[in-house]
Amino acid sequence: MSVDAAAARASTQELAGELFERLRAATSDGTGITRQSYGPGEGAALDIIEAKARALDLHTQRDAGANLVITLEGSDPRLPFLACGSHVDSVPQGGNYDGAAGVVAGLIVLASFRQEGLKPRRTCKLYALRGEESARFGKACIGSNALFGRLSAADLGMKATESDRTLGDCMREVGADLDRIKAGKALVDPKQFAGWLELHIEQGPVLLARALPVGIVTGIRGNIRHRTVECIGAPGHSGAVPRWLRHDAVFATAELITHLDRHWRTLLERGRDVVITTGIVSTDAREHALARIPGKLGFSFEVRSQSKETLEAFYDLFLSECRLVGEERGVEFKLDRRIESAPAVMDAQWVTRLRAVARGLGLPDEEIPSGAGHDAAIFANEGIPSAMIFVRNEHGSHNPDEAMALDDFAAGVAIMREALKEAAA
Amino acid sequence: MSVDAAAARASTQELAGELFERLRAATSDGTGITRQSYGPGEGAALDIIEAKARALDLHTQRDAGANLVITLEGSDPRLPFLACGSHVDSVPQGGNYDGAAGVVAGLIVLASFRQEGLKPRRTCKLYALRGEESARFGKACIGSNALFGRLSAADLGMKATESDRTLGDCMREVGADLDRIKAGKALVDPKQFAGWLELHIEQGPVLLARALPVGIVTGIRGNIRHRTVECIGAPGHSGAVPRWLRHDAVFATAELITHLDRHWRTLLERGRDVVITTGIVSTDAREHALARIPGKLGFSFEVRSQSKETLEAFYDLFLSECRLVGEERGVEFKLDRRIESAPAVMDAQWVTRLRAVARGLGLPDEEIPSGAGHDAAIFANEGIPSAMIFVRNEHGSHNPDEAMALDDFAAGVAIMREALKEAAA
Repeated sequence: MSVDAAAARASTQELAGELFERLRAATSDGTGITRQSYGPGEGAALDIIEAKARALDLHTQRDAGANLVITLEGSDPRLPFLACGSHVDSVPQGGNYDGAAGVVAGLIVLASFRQEGLKPRRTCKLYALRGEESARFGKACIGSNALFGRLSAADLGMKATESDRTLGDCMREVGADLDRIKAGKALVDPKQFAGWLELHIEQGPVLLARALPVGIVTGIRGNIRHRTVECIGAPGHSGAVPRWLRHDAVFATAELITHLDRHWRTLLERGRDVVITTGIVSTDAREHALARIPGKLGFSFEVRSQSKETLEAFYDLFLSECRLVGEERGVEFKLDRRIESAPAVMDAQWVTRLRAVARGLGLPDEEIPSGAGHDAAIFANEGIPSAMIFVRNEHGSHNPDEAMALDDFAAGVAIMREALKEAAA
Repeated sequence: MSVDAAAARASTQELAGELFERLRAATSDGTGITRQSYGPGEGAALDIIEAKARALDLHTQRDAGANLVITLEGSDPRLPFLACGSHVDSVPQGGNYDGAAGVVAGLIVLASFRQEGLKPRRTCKLYALRGEESARFGKACIGSNALFGRLSAADLGMKATESDRTLGDCMREVGADLDRIKAGKALVDPKQFAGWLELHIEQGPVLLARALPVGIVTGIRGNIRHRTVECIGAPGHSGAVPRWLRHDAVFATAELITHLDRHWRTLLERGRDVVITTGIVSTDAREHALARIPGKLGFSFEVRSQSKETLEAFYDLFLSECRLVGEERGVEFKLDRRIESAPAVMDAQWVTRLRAVARGLGLPDEEIPSGAGHDAAIFANEGIPSAMIFVRNEHGSHNPDEAMALDDFAAGVAIMREALKEAAA
């Protein structure tokens, strides 16, 4: 590493350390951090980023989706601009880096351009997006979907997990222009984007296992979800109803999940990319009793794959198992609205550039697919050349134990900085 | 039916209708009725029964367990007394008849003795017991166990589902003499009881299916329970952790339940009496997210059988499956305190008498086993000759839709009345 590079890394780590600490302190919930989509923690995080951007002499504004946009104007502002960024929201009791890392990275890069008096041809923008996590409304990437007019009336009518308030209500409350969003028109023309670059912690264990500080993402899994599937059976006294007369919602759902697990194993053996998850399961707390055959059970369902075809094939299996187990056990599986995110492929030119930059910096240039969904998938599916840099992270994400070394982060920022500089020049 | 018998039935139905209506009105929760063990609804029910007993010129008192005891003194009060009764508590959003039917029946029988100036040799007592349902503290038949000094320090330390208050605290609050109960001495010597007779709605569909208004109980299933089994896996991002690296608490528990279901079917095929139930299942609401691999799942476990041996055999299978599934999936099943109720056999002389009385009244005299647990099992296991009369009831119990016809109830009361009269003479 050159003396300059070492100094840049040290300066990155200092600013990053300060910002991550302020974000953590402002949004701690005692266990982890909580920055719910379109909620107060998310707003507090945006305020911290915005104040720092202004202090660093960068222009800031909130767009019609109530996202924060930080701009470094280029020498030829008529050219399509280069955008980078990520999201600031989190799951409840989540970790400090999932999302925020990409926003802090973008701020450090733009601030370093400003500080060095670097004025690239293209304008560079940092998007600190809201609403990427599905935890609160069941839909992911709400902020980036809003940007491109991709929120339907049904999306805007989705209710928050903790209350009866709709996504539309919550968006309006933080300042989004709901009339424009409802109209389904893009808030910004995708053609104005020359590209999208997103740094994000890896949310799985691959980089750690392979001892790589960073990875270059090739594609992003899509998903199909139901926030709530209700298994409706019949309640009864646990001692008084024999097995053959039961319509037990818990036993039926256990069998459904066990069947889905078997299909999953079979698909993996055939080399398909697929993961399935039931993150939320609950009998009705108002009628909880040890001695009551549960007549109702609610659970969430999610299937993810890099292949649209595998997603649909597994979803068909899911529907068919719901019917079969339902018939056999005399229960009904009632599905709420199907929510989906399309898989996305990262731009080949970006991938080539990022790998070359990484090699130039003496860093590994390994490719890695993304199992988790990201805003980058929304940009990519709008036809914007998009790319992602993953940073190694211990203990996964969506939990308080996320652990990203600032040294690894600085490596990711260095790649991002050089790649943006090249692309904007 | 004789004119007298018809008049008695009509009078029974009138008083019963009035009492059930008052109980329902006082403890309605909007959906069903709620009379939690050692809680306000239970207390309100006891007050209604006590006031009516006094109005009917019967002696009432609260015993050291805070149960209500209503006495009709016999002509030879030194003889062991005959006791009847049941419990007044309910599960949350339960039905109006589970428990209360036996208390109302006892009150009607004692009141009719008083009204007719009938003074049997033996004293007759009606016990309106508290705390039979396990819904609030995880343990069943608390009131009858307290009566015989069968509550351990661990039992008294059990916490209510809805708060951090212990059973001991809640018992003391309603007036129980906790020092005596803690000492583990019987509040009343079992030798003072000449017998125990309990009328109860059938909580299953058997009498209904066989078109019988009443049944004579031969034995009562026991059970082994855990209020909370915790499956501890590892949380993770649902998109980023592949199947082979997951420790998914929901998938592991689904597999466990599916295995237990298979063992259950096998035992039934071999003619064993057994039912298993998981009435409560829940991931942690504080960390609910669609996209989070659940690292924790809590669930209740219950096995019931008329055979102590089958109970223990199934429990061993349960422990062994917890180990096997735990090893295979890298999760741990953590069990809280094992709670048990022993199976019980009803007294042969009582059964013979009840059947003869039923035939004498022109009623069916069919025998039926009890799948559900009852206070009668506690009395029986103290060596007290005990018996039960089941009354037909639609839609099972532990739900708001319990439906007992007052005509069927009057048939049960008639049998109880004649049998008590004979036994006390």
